Amino acid sequence: MRIALYQGSPQPLDVAGNLERLQQQAYLAAGRGAQLLVCPEMFLSGYNIGSEAAARLAEAEDGPSAMRVVEIAQANRIAIIYGYPELADDGRIYNSVQLIDGHGSSLANYRKTHLFGGLDRAMFSPGDNHFPVVELAGWQVGMLICYDIEFPENARRLAMAGAELIVVPTANMEPFDFICQVTVRSRAYENQCYLVYANYCGAEGEIQYCGHSSIVAPDGSILAMAGRDSVMLSADLELQRVHEGRANTPYLKDLRAELHGGPRSD
Amino acid sequence: MRIALYQGSPQPLDVAGNLERLQQQAYLAAGRGAQLLVCPEMFLSGYNIGSEAAARLAEAEDGPSAMRVVEIAQANRIAIIYGYPELADDGRIYNSVQLIDGHGSSLANYRKTHLFGGLDRAMFSPGDNHFPVVELAGWQVGMLICYDIEFPENARRLAMAGAELIVVPTANMEPFDFICQVTVRSRAYENQCYLVYANYCGAEGEIQYCGHSSIVAPDGSILAMAGRDSVMLSADLELQRVHEGRANTPYLKDLRAELHGGPRSD
Repeated sequence: MRIALYQGSPQPLDVAGNLERLQQQAYLAAGRGAQLLVCPEMFLSGYNIGSEAAARLAEAEDGPSAMRVVEIAQANRIAIIYGYPELADDGRIYNSVQLIDGHGSSLANYRKTHLFGGLDRAMFSPGDNHFPVVELAGWQVGMLICYDIEFPENARRLAMAGAELIVVPTANMEPFDFICQVTVRSRAYENQCYLVYANYCGAEGEIQYCGHSSIVAPDGSILAMAGRDSVMLSADLELQRVHEGRANTPYLKDLRAELHGGPRSD
Repeated sequence: MRIALYQGSPQPLDVAGNLERLQQQAYLAAGRGAQLLVCPEMFLSGYNIGSEAAARLAEAEDGPSAMRVVEIAQANRIAIIYGYPELADDGRIYNSVQLIDGHGSSLANYRKTHLFGGLDRAMFSPGDNHFPVVELAGWQVGMLICYDIEFPENARRLAMAGAELIVVPTANMEPFDFICQVTVRSRAYENQCYLVYANYCGAEGEIQYCGHSSIVAPDGSILAMAGRDSVMLSADLELQRVHEGRANTPYLKDLRAELHGGPRSD
C-alpha cells in the first residue's frame, strides 16, 4: 500500500478552507498513486481554537463536513484519515479521527481517549473504551490521536487486536520533539508494525508545532520524515515486512501479559 | 545519587576472575564517589555459556559468590547490582540480578521474566510474577534484565509501583542496537524515570555485543553513553528531576489503565 501524509500549518476556524485544502492534497496524493492520505489532528477546524469554537464547529461523524470528505475520497479514489471535532449523539464533543475509504464508506471513527492537559480537557470529553481495528486494502489499521501514542498501552492494544498499521494524526508542539524523534520509532519497533505520525508545522496562537511527521517501518527505521515546513510525504508499505518482523522479533508472542493483569498469550 | 556503570567484555566461565574484576571496578567506582555500581547480565559467569555450564555455575542467591559480592560491597562501601545464574530452592535455574547495598545486605533479587529466544530458554526458567521495587539511598529502585526492557509493560509495572530508577543489566547483541539507541530512551521518557542500561562489549562465541550502555534521564536525555569498548560511566542522578518530570509530563497520572484491564488511576 502506498501511503501519503500531509503536514501543513493549521488554518484555524476555516472549515471550508480546510476542506478545500483536503481536496487539493487528496488530488496530489492520488496523483502519486497513494491509496491512503493521512492529515493532522483536528484538521477540519484547527486544534488550538478553544472550547467555544470547538463546540460551535463540532459535527456528527456523518455531518456535512464528513459528507464533503466522502465526496473528496470518491472523486480521488483515495482513503482519507482526518481529524475533526465530533458532536456525538450524547451531546458531548470529542476529539475524533475518521477513516473514509476510497469508495466513500466510513470504516471507523475513533475518539481520543487520552486528553492532553488543560488544552484538550477544555474542549473535549475523553473517548470511551473503543479502539477500532479495521481492514483497508488488505491491511489491519488502527488509529490513535497525538497524546495517545505516548502511552505504550494504547499502541499495544491495537497491535494485540491485529493492527499492522497504526495511524496517528497529531498536533505535537514544542518542546515535545522527543516524541517525533524517539517515541514514535519505539512504538513501531516494540509492536513490529508500521506507524504514520501526521503532525502540523508552523504556529497556531501561542503554540509552535514540531513538524517532523514521519512514516516508520516495523524495524523502527524512518521511511520518510518531514522537516518543519509544509510537505507531503509518501512511502510504500509492505505487509511482508510486518509478517517477517513479527516472526523474527516476536514481542507480541513473547509478552507475558498475564503477569500484568492481561490475558495469557499462549 | 552518583551511579557508576561498568561495560566490559564477558569473561565466560571464569567466576573467580569476574569476582576479581568486580572488586577492581567497585574500587574504581567508589573512588569516583559512586554509591551504586551496575554490571551487565550474568556478569559472574558470562552469558553465552550454554545450559550445562549455566547449571554447573548456578548458585543460590546467598551462595559463595554472593557472599564475596557482599564483602566487595562492604569493603568499598558501595551498592552493587550484578547478574548471575541462580540455583533456586525449587531446583530451577534463573537468569537473575541481585542488589547488595553498601552495608552488604541483599535488598532485592529479580529473576528475568521475559526470556530471549532459544539462547535464554536453553539455560533458564522464566521468573515468576515478582518485580521488586526497593529503597536505596532514598531512591525507589526496580530492576529488569535485557529483553525485559523491550516490553513497555515491564518498565511501566515498576514505575507504577513507585520506581524512580530502573536498572537494566543486559547482554544486548548485534543486530539489536536499536534498543540501545531508541527503546531505552523511550522507556525512561514514557515513565519519567532514570534508566541505567549496562551492557557488554566485545564478543562471546558467535555473539557480538553492542556496547552503547547508557544512563538516561527522565526527559530522555542521555547523561552518559558508552561506545563499543570497555569503560566505566558515571553520572549524578537527581530525585528532583523525577518529581518535576512527573509533575510536568504526568503520564503515570494520565494513563487510563482501566481501558486496558488495569486498575483505575484516579
